[in-house]
Amino acid sequence: MIVPASEADGSAIQRITATAGNFSDEEIECVKELWDEYLNEGPEISGYHFVVQKEGRQVFGYACYGPRALTQDTYDLYWIAADIQARRHGTGRALMDYVEQQIAAKGGRLILVETSSQEMYIGTRKFYESLGYIPEAIIQDFYSDGDDLVIYTKKLPH
Amino acid sequence: MIVPASEADGSAIQRITATAGNFSDEEIECVKELWDEYLNEGPEISGYHFVVQKEGRQVFGYACYGPRALTQDTYDLYWIAADIQARRHGTGRALMDYVEQQIAAKGGRLILVETSSQEMYIGTRKFYESLGYIPEAIIQDFYSDGDDLVIYTKKLPH
Repeated sequence: MIVPASEADGSAIQRITATAGNFSDEEIECVKELWDEYLNEGPEISGYHFVVQKEGRQVFGYACYGPRALTQDTYDLYWIAADIQARRHGTGRALMDYVEQQIAAKGGRLILVETSSQEMYIGTRKFYESLGYIPEAIIQDFYSDGDDLVIYTKKLPH
Repeated sequence: MIVPASEADGSAIQRITATAGNFSDEEIECVKELWDEYLNEGPEISGYHFVVQKEGRQVFGYACYGPRALTQDTYDLYWIAADIQARRHGTGRALMDYVEQQIAAKGGRLILVETSSQEMYIGTRKFYESLGYIPEAIIQDFYSDGDDLVIYTKKLPH
């Protein structure tokens, strides 16, 4: 089942991020910071909504999304990661479906996902594309020289 | 002269933002939040660098920039605004020159500026374009239906 994350899920979220293999130390630290804000301030004030797929105490994956400041009903998907053992079981797709439903229920119109143009993210990009996300914009050399930002978008029916 | 903003410049920064005419209430509030973080935590920890053009106690305009998380030497120009009486005197250009020099001195490679596609921002967009910024990416309906995000970029020599 997929539910809002609770404090006990924190260590699994950090472990899944650290073992995913495609996050840098700075990105792992960033997830911790968003998680702390989510725990301390709650999703509405922090703007970070963490959700987990779990059975009992076992967490298979998580996602973090929230409203984009200064926009009307546009949302960012900040992070999504699945346990490396859980990926074949559709955790990523189930989390994306859940997040899209949650955003739609809040009146969201548009979802943005940012990722890298690097070869190691080709699986990530194909995953978003398979879910109807469009690579709408590219910022060349955004992350570093030769590593572009790709902004995927998906419009929700409303 | 253009210098890092000090606490006494806060009221002028808020006044300039509020009277600029092209900022929404939410945007004015956002400037306040960034300003509070800058004052309380300082520019290095908050990531927000406020600079002002002033003579004596009179503030003609301000800008706010900072490093973009998870990138290598990419910077965002978050805000720039000039007193409506000061615009003809080149405050905006002087602030942009100063910010670019500061970012270059920190090893910055790339500057991003986000603005709206709406007609009321045509002056803003022409201003950035006159300074060598390129409209590199557009996200349709980002701010609201019919109001796109335009991301301008400028590469700094390095």
